[in-house]
Amino acid sequence: MEAEPDSTSVDFRSACPVSRSLDLMGDKWTLLIMRDALIFDRRTFADFAASSERIPTNLLSQRLKKLVATGLLERRPYHDKPLRYEYIPTALAADLRPVLTALEVFGRRHLGEGD
Amino acid sequence: MEAEPDSTSVDFRSACPVSRSLDLMGDKWTLLIMRDALIFDRRTFADFAASSERIPTNLLSQRLKKLVATGLLERRPYHDKPLRYEYIPTALAADLRPVLTALEVFGRRHLGEGD
Repeated sequence: MEAEPDSTSVDFRSACPVSRSLDLMGDKWTLLIMRDALIFDRRTFADFAASSERIPTNLLSQRLKKLVATGLLERRPYHDKPLRYEYIPTALAADLRPVLTALEVFGRRHLGEGD
Repeated sequence: MEAEPDSTSVDFRSACPVSRSLDLMGDKWTLLIMRDALIFDRRTFADFAASSERIPTNLLSQRLKKLVATGLLERRPYHDKPLRYEYIPTALAADLRPVLTALEVFGRRHLGEGD
């Protein structure tokens, strides 16, 4: 059974698939968390919080919840006392790789490390 | 002379090219305007405002200004009295097509028109 995004948690603005994808991930943080999970193998809240973009922890909590609800990350306990969770990209999440790659290519080509 | 995004108008959070792209276009509207300009050949403020996602006009004004400032759209007068402008995608904008395509493929595959 493949995890599909839980569409009840997203308000779609239109039937356009570009628009629907942006309803899910059109913000400054969601795709950075997925970059960290998919490309840098970050797993824990502390891992994600330590990324160089320094996501505020309240936003990180919100985004992780949303990513679990939409089936892009799976939350698993990895430590008992105290209880701690890690976040694992699902099979569905792999389909975000082309989005990340396209953003990377554009950024590398046009938004170089000039400043 | 190729138009490059005016990096002075964007605050980059890190050197990561994915992050830099998201600094520029990581929101719910910027890429929809570029979809309209690149794919649906929309040109005028009224054209963009009429898209089925119904962007609020204050956000549309802001985003068009930003897209002109960053070199993704060029603003040209097309009517004299009253003075009216149209917005034309630049050569740089064409490099957003793979981003739009990747979002479209993900949306079509996983965020179908179920509701």
